[in-house]
Amino acid sequence: MNETIETILNHRSIRKFQDEPLTEAQVHTLIQSAQSAATSSYIQAYSIVGVTDREKKKALAELAGGQSYVEHNGHFFVFCADLYRHAVLAEEKDVEITPALESTEKFMVTVVDAALAAQNAAIAAESMGLGICYIGGIRNDLEQVQQLLETPAYVVPLFGFAVGVPRDNASTKPRLPMTHIYHENTYDADRARVHEEIAAYDETIQAYYEERTGGARSDTWSEQMMRLLQKNSRSYMKDFVQNQGLNRR
Amino acid sequence: MNETIETILNHRSIRKFQDEPLTEAQVHTLIQSAQSAATSSYIQAYSIVGVTDREKKKALAELAGGQSYVEHNGHFFVFCADLYRHAVLAEEKDVEITPALESTEKFMVTVVDAALAAQNAAIAAESMGLGICYIGGIRNDLEQVQQLLETPAYVVPLFGFAVGVPRDNASTKPRLPMTHIYHENTYDADRARVHEEIAAYDETIQAYYEERTGGARSDTWSEQMMRLLQKNSRSYMKDFVQNQGLNRR
Repeated sequence: MNETIETILNHRSIRKFQDEPLTEAQVHTLIQSAQSAATSSYIQAYSIVGVTDREKKKALAELAGGQSYVEHNGHFFVFCADLYRHAVLAEEKDVEITPALESTEKFMVTVVDAALAAQNAAIAAESMGLGICYIGGIRNDLEQVQQLLETPAYVVPLFGFAVGVPRDNASTKPRLPMTHIYHENTYDADRARVHEEIAAYDETIQAYYEERTGGARSDTWSEQMMRLLQKNSRSYMKDFVQNQGLNRR
Repeated sequence: MNETIETILNHRSIRKFQDEPLTEAQVHTLIQSAQSAATSSYIQAYSIVGVTDREKKKALAELAGGQSYVEHNGHFFVFCADLYRHAVLAEEKDVEITPALESTEKFMVTVVDAALAAQNAAIAAESMGLGICYIGGIRNDLEQVQQLLETPAYVVPLFGFAVGVPRDNASTKPRLPMTHIYHENTYDADRARVHEEIAAYDETIQAYYEERTGGARSDTWSEQMMRLLQKNSRSYMKDFVQNQGLNRR
């Protein structure tokens, strides 16, 4: 196993960082890494906003649900789906591209593009000995994020990304069995198999939490998922995204 | 610069592979790498379908627009947004999660999850000396992909991913200027800046194509983008995704 794969397999989310800012060179390397990811038809449909302003970081930490590591870290990025530059170009050149800009297809493209870029930054950071945490919590209130960062039309902030020198030693979390994620030639939708594999996985997860918490937490993946999905959080998202001009048709 | 970052910065899409299948161990490593990526609230909302069946690969190559490297490669994967297992669990436990399953928010989560996983597989593959190419072309006809792979409700195939021993030496493609992708604290939406930066980039791209093709191709990024976006391809996507039960509300 080479060092890169070791880095990849060793991923864990870091939620405590030293209060030590990244160097300019480090930030540069992370963005360059992000930009090196594949991009659909060369479209490069994303932007990254680095947030260093203390007040803005504090506001983001609060709206993300009081996550201190959004405020305290080495650097904080917000990855955005972005077709703004394309819209500006089209207006300049007087070319009609609204149907494409507003399409579900292009929305998917922007989200994939942004995520591929972010994951490159994640692996690059981890290979440098830094830790990272994706912050979906910024989606609690994208109206406010948009105001804070002044993102224009055709831009949707997707997630935050905290990076820094780790100050905790979280452990890797067990994933669903590979046989459950990976199918060969045909998707195996057999419910009995789903049931069986998730039941076994639930036992793994229960043991994982019990061991980590000295028995204080006993939780399964299924239970977590049902709690998460019963909530239907962020139900404003459709309107927000459509107001930005994306995912409309 | 460490080896991992070298690998990341050295990315180029490979469109010619040796007809040499990946070993089982290699496939295993790629999936394990994919699964090690961060996942929103532990939701693990994606699946990967490996396609080895000759007829299926041929059919996918055709529907992707006659891309031979979809058929001829070391291994072909299809990455899918997937909330099927969550839907099955909820039915079993008699828990109502339909609003969440159908939400734009959760659709975004599944797409991000799948893309993060895929990019881990990409970097892992490239670190092993393999080449990769993302295949958005499978989205030309997801109805047919769905039939070929038998994906159930709450699953949307997002993109293909060809991997194998490279048989061409494509070069890395210049990206938009970093200043254009990266903003600090505030998104700089100034149109004059967008215009200026893209004009400079267009010159870079024109020189790049002219050099690579001995002057035969003279094209700018702007021109490419306008051609791409005027087409509004795959306008069936909204209906397809919503028929799968996702991105409905």
